[in-house]
Amino acid sequence: MTTSDALHPLDAAIALEPVDPSDPSRLRGATTPEYWNMVGPFGGTTAAVLLRAVLRQPNVHGEPITLTVNYAGPVAEGEFEVSVEAVRTNRSNQHWVITQTQGEQVCTTATAVTAVRKETWTDSEAQVPVVPPAESIEPSPDYPGIAWNARYEQRMIEGGIPSETDGESDSSRTTFWVRDNPPRPVDVYSVTSQTDTLYPRAFLRKGTFLPAGTVSITIHYLADLPELEALGEGYSLVTGAARRFGRSYFDQTSEVWSAHGKLLATAHQMVYFKA
Amino acid sequence: MTTSDALHPLDAAIALEPVDPSDPSRLRGATTPEYWNMVGPFGGTTAAVLLRAVLRQPNVHGEPITLTVNYAGPVAEGEFEVSVEAVRTNRSNQHWVITQTQGEQVCTTATAVTAVRKETWTDSEAQVPVVPPAESIEPSPDYPGIAWNARYEQRMIEGGIPSETDGESDSSRTTFWVRDNPPRPVDVYSVTSQTDTLYPRAFLRKGTFLPAGTVSITIHYLADLPELEALGEGYSLVTGAARRFGRSYFDQTSEVWSAHGKLLATAHQMVYFKA
Repeated sequence: MTTSDALHPLDAAIALEPVDPSDPSRLRGATTPEYWNMVGPFGGTTAAVLLRAVLRQPNVHGEPITLTVNYAGPVAEGEFEVSVEAVRTNRSNQHWVITQTQGEQVCTTATAVTAVRKETWTDSEAQVPVVPPAESIEPSPDYPGIAWNARYEQRMIEGGIPSETDGESDSSRTTFWVRDNPPRPVDVYSVTSQTDTLYPRAFLRKGTFLPAGTVSITIHYLADLPELEALGEGYSLVTGAARRFGRSYFDQTSEVWSAHGKLLATAHQMVYFKA
Repeated sequence: MTTSDALHPLDAAIALEPVDPSDPSRLRGATTPEYWNMVGPFGGTTAAVLLRAVLRQPNVHGEPITLTVNYAGPVAEGEFEVSVEAVRTNRSNQHWVITQTQGEQVCTTATAVTAVRKETWTDSEAQVPVVPPAESIEPSPDYPGIAWNARYEQRMIEGGIPSETDGESDSSRTTFWVRDNPPRPVDVYSVTSQTDTLYPRAFLRKGTFLPAGTVSITIHYLADLPELEALGEGYSLVTGAARRFGRSYFDQTSEVWSAHGKLLATAHQMVYFKA
């Protein structure tokens, strides 16, 4: 697979081409070093890859409403395949089953719902956190050894990655401004990836890095595509926390807000941990 | 399919038997009038059916961590089939893809993760709502025409179904005690169903019934099976709200707490609506 040097690294990471030009339901992509995590690619990028596989289908009906990705095992460095099936198409929505494989091994399973959105009553009930503007906060340094982190400009407001002297925290709340690095116009793929930029909440509570990994993420798209695409290269505000930790798992919910205070998407995760 | 009169209605609703005794991955069940909704069975019961199909598999590894159910179309009155596939089994977890069909038509798609839980650090960070005890509140009357509602004893604390005189509400928060009716020992199936007992948040905000239906629900299991089974026939406390409404969809998150103030499970939904 070839990708142009002119592509933004996120667009290179989510690039897909048909395995067989006559069958759009089987696509091939490849991991990229720019979004490498500890033992596989960044899960946010994988989610964006699977969503892109859906939205590339010639019969796609509507825009994303929800995407659930279950990380069955690490994606190894190199090529992967994504197979996509529209298992049911209704007048107003469409139901997708997606599988990412390497050889015979399933790496990732996913489902998605796309739908035709119409004008309705609208209301933003959730309150955006009151925070200082992005430009007033220094960007956080990159974490050594986690490549994808350098692909995000992060400006931390509360709950940054703990240092050795921070100790335990009573709260798992983290809030930060985030933007693709280099800047890239916001779209449904960048927002999908950004929903997964919240680091595992057990790190913050315990004040240290621990073995931890997301097993499942569900992303809900609360903004439509034109709203996302009107954001240009703006910052997103991410805030999130956990509810309960125990017996090898905890949950965490992140909200991704626009700089204008609109809730764009949420992500609800279950995360494996050892502590 | 025959079900014993001695079964609790929930157990009758989630009863499954193999289509072919030599193949446990294809199961047959049937809707029951006791859990009928407007145009199909109650979605909480359907979620419990799909979970049960997983947990009945002879090769199941561990206990439920997460279940996502996408309601592709209404389940018609009568028999349905559920097919279950363990697409990947790891040392500590297992990844499932589940499909509910009637004839050739896919009614529901789902994925689940089961996992072996071990002792870890535990903490309940989310705060249980401060509410009066269940016994101090009168049970709500059943809603006419929605059979499943009578299968739950509900004692409303805030945000009950609006009456004609209530008008619009600024908050989509509803909190209530709930218990199976007749009482039934709590288990992972009753909790799964209970996560979906929160009625559509647009009803409360707009002060009226509207066309609305869940397209996707993701349930996170924060309590393990022994913790659930120790609850006996106790009440659960359900609280939930929406974040944003617009362009045909809104989200809603519900939390199901034990009477002892432990968070048992959460459900995150995307709901279609017209208003």
